[in-house]
Amino acid sequence: MLHGEPTWELIEHWDATDPVRRLREAFVIPDESLVYLDGNSLGRLSRPTVQTLARTVEDEWGAGLIGSWQDWLALPEQVGELIGTRVLGAASGEVVVADSTTVNLYRLLVGAVRARPGRRVVVTDADNFPTDHYVLQGAARELGLTVRVVPAHLDTGVDPAELSAAIDEDVSVICLSHVAYRSGALVDLATVTALAHRAGALTLWDLSHSAGAVAVDLAGSGADLAVGCTYKYLCGGPGAPAFLYVRAGLQDELDLPVWGWFGQRDQFEMGSEYAPRDGIGRFLLGTPPVLALRCVQTSVALLDGVGLPALWTKGRRLGELAATLTTRWLEPLGAALASPPAASARGAHLTVAHPRARALTAALIERGVVPDFRTPDRIRFGFAPATTRYRDVWTGFATLRDLLTGR
Amino acid sequence: MLHGEPTWELIEHWDATDPVRRLREAFVIPDESLVYLDGNSLGRLSRPTVQTLARTVEDEWGAGLIGSWQDWLALPEQVGELIGTRVLGAASGEVVVADSTTVNLYRLLVGAVRARPGRRVVVTDADNFPTDHYVLQGAARELGLTVRVVPAHLDTGVDPAELSAAIDEDVSVICLSHVAYRSGALVDLATVTALAHRAGALTLWDLSHSAGAVAVDLAGSGADLAVGCTYKYLCGGPGAPAFLYVRAGLQDELDLPVWGWFGQRDQFEMGSEYAPRDGIGRFLLGTPPVLALRCVQTSVALLDGVGLPALWTKGRRLGELAATLTTRWLEPLGAALASPPAASARGAHLTVAHPRARALTAALIERGVVPDFRTPDRIRFGFAPATTRYRDVWTGFATLRDLLTGR
Repeated sequence: MLHGEPTWELIEHWDATDPVRRLREAFVIPDESLVYLDGNSLGRLSRPTVQTLARTVEDEWGAGLIGSWQDWLALPEQVGELIGTRVLGAASGEVVVADSTTVNLYRLLVGAVRARPGRRVVVTDADNFPTDHYVLQGAARELGLTVRVVPAHLDTGVDPAELSAAIDEDVSVICLSHVAYRSGALVDLATVTALAHRAGALTLWDLSHSAGAVAVDLAGSGADLAVGCTYKYLCGGPGAPAFLYVRAGLQDELDLPVWGWFGQRDQFEMGSEYAPRDGIGRFLLGTPPVLALRCVQTSVALLDGVGLPALWTKGRRLGELAATLTTRWLEPLGAALASPPAASARGAHLTVAHPRARALTAALIERGVVPDFRTPDRIRFGFAPATTRYRDVWTGFATLRDLLTGR
Repeated sequence: MLHGEPTWELIEHWDATDPVRRLREAFVIPDESLVYLDGNSLGRLSRPTVQTLARTVEDEWGAGLIGSWQDWLALPEQVGELIGTRVLGAASGEVVVADSTTVNLYRLLVGAVRARPGRRVVVTDADNFPTDHYVLQGAARELGLTVRVVPAHLDTGVDPAELSAAIDEDVSVICLSHVAYRSGALVDLATVTALAHRAGALTLWDLSHSAGAVAVDLAGSGADLAVGCTYKYLCGGPGAPAFLYVRAGLQDELDLPVWGWFGQRDQFEMGSEYAPRDGIGRFLLGTPPVLALRCVQTSVALLDGVGLPALWTKGRRLGELAATLTTRWLEPLGAALASPPAASARGAHLTVAHPRARALTAALIERGVVPDFRTPDRIRFGFAPATTRYRDVWTGFATLRDLLTGR
C-alpha cells in the first residue's frame, strides 16, 4: 500500500509523470470519460491494430490472396516468439500462438500426464478458472485420472503449505493459474515448479491473467508448460488466439493428442502419414487465424515498444493505489479487500467484496465505471497498464464510495 | 460436358447473362486482369466484409468494449445457424462455428467412436485430406482403434463398391470428405450414410470443399456428423473458424472429449463442476474468435442474398466449361483430366494432371493465372461461383494451352 494520503493533486502528478503515459494515445478511446477497469477481461483496441487489420484485410487478403500464405505460414511461430521472449521470459522457440486456451490446456495436460507414466493424479486448486476445471475433469475422465483439488482461498489464492501437502509421487502434473482470476493472487512460479520437480511432477501454468500484467519468468523458474490468452492485457482483440509454451527440453518427448497438418513436416507434400516437424511448430494443428494473429502481433509489438517492465511497474502501482483507496474509502463502508494486501502477491487486478456486489457492479457501469462482477459477491477491477490512468482508479473507487454512501 | 464448341463470343454471352454476375461487384478485386482460380483455397474478400470488420473493430471492440459480449456470445450459434440452414441443408440448431476443422474433426470422431462401443474400426479413404488422416491416426492411437483405409483413386475418388466392402460390424465411424480435395470427386452423402447406418455405423463428413460449392443436404441424407472450413467458398477470410454439425437426435448422447466454459450451462455463474448446456451450444469450448465470426457471418449472408442454389448451378457450369476445354485443348497436348468427367460427380473444382505440373503451376502464376499445385502432378482449378467468371476459366485454360504449346 501507499504511504501517506493520496490526493487528487498527487494523482494528477502521477499521471503527468507516468513514463508510459504516451502509450494511451496509441489507443482508440472514443469516450475519455469512460473509466474502463476491465482491460483484464478485454484489452482496448490500439490504433496500430486498426491500421494493421486494414492492411492485412485489403492488401494481404484482398489483393495478395493465396500468395500471402508465404508470409502467413510463419505467423503462429513469429507471434509466439514475440510473446515468448518479450512477455513471458521464455527462451527462443518455446511459444506458438494457436487455438484457444481451453484447447491448448487440454492438449498440454494430456501430453504431460503421458510424460509421467504411472502417475494418476493431477493437482489444481478449487478457485482455478472454470474452464481449467472443465478441462481437467474432461481429461481425467478420458485418462482415468484423479483430480486432487487443494482448498480455495477466494481472497488470497493457493496456500503453499496446502499445495505442498497435496504433492506426492502419484502426481504427474500441477495445473494452476499464475494469477488467480478472481482475487488476483499471484503464485510464485519458481517455488511451485521446484516443489513439482522435487516430486517428479510437471507444471502447467495458465498465464491468462499474467501475460502483459506482471513479470513472468518461464525460463528462470524452470516452468515446464503454459498456456494463456492474448485478449486481456495483450490487447489482441475479442477471442484472439491463445499461446502455448513448451520448455525446449520437453518438446521432443511430449506426445500431445490431436494431430494436424500445420504440425506436419513438409506440410505441402501432403503425405498421409503423420510425421511432426521439429521444435515448437510441431504442436500446431489447423489453419491459423490470420487476422487475429496480425492483431496480436501488432498490439504486443506496441507494448514492447515502451517495454513490458515499465508496464508491470505501472500495473503494480495502479493496484497499490486501489488497495489504499479500498482501505481508506471502502472498508469503512462495509466493503472488504478480497485480494492479497501486498502488491507483490497480486497480479494487475484487485477485487472488492460486498454483499451487494452484483447490483453495485451494475450501478457502477451505469455511472460510467466498468469493472467486472465475479461470483459470489465480488467486484473485480483490472488495471491494464497500457491504458489505465491513476485518475481512472481514483474515479472508479470514488464512484463506488459514492454508491456505498448512497450518493 | 458442354455440347458444341465453346467460343469467346459464347463465353462473353454467358458472363453477360449470368444471373449472379452482380455478386462479383460486391467483392474487392484490385486487379481485374488476375485470373484467380484458387477461391477453393482462399475465397475472396467482399466489400461488406471490409465494412463489417471496420464496424466490429471500431464500434464493438473499440467503443463497446466488454459490453459487446452481450451480442458476441451468441455468434458461434448464430453464424452456425446461418451456415447450417442456408448452406448445408441442416435443421435448425445443428451447427456451430468454432475452432478449426482439425479440432472439430478430432472431437467428433472420438465422440462418435464412443457412441458405438465395442466397435474398434474407423473407415476413411487413402486420398482423404492429410489433416483428416492425421486426426484419424492420432485418435486411433489414443483410443486403440484401427483405421481401415479404402484405396485411393486420385482422379475419381472413393469407389462405392470398395467402400461398401470395407464396412462391417466392427466399424464405428466412416469419415470421408464429401468433395475430394485433389480431384473434386463427389461422394453421395445419402448413399454412404445409408450404407453406414445399415451396418450400425455413424458418418462423419469433412465438408471443407463442399460448403458453398455444391448442394449439401445434411438433413435429407441423414448424415450424423460433419465439419468444414469457412475460408474457401464461404469467403470467411484466412484461418476463419470451422463449423461443426451434429444431427439433433445425436446431440444429447454424444460425449465429446475436451470440455470448455462456452459449453457450460450458466457460464457466468462460474461453477467449477462441468455441466453442459442443452443443444448444439454444448459443443463449444473457449472464447470464440469474434472478428472472424463477424467476417463469416457477413460473407455467408452476402452469398445467401443471391441464393446458394444459383451459386451451385454456376459452379457446376464453370466446371463443365473447364472439363470441355481440358478435352479440347489440353488432352491433345499431353495433359489429362484428373477429375470425374461427369459434372454431377464433381464439386466446384477440377484437376488436370501433367508430368510438369509443378513448373506449369509456377508458370501460370507468372502469367497471372492462379491455380494450386497438388501432389504428385496435379494442377487444381477452383471455380468459386461468387467471383469466378466464365472468361476466367477460358483465359486460365487458354494460358495453360499456350504454355503446353511452348507459346
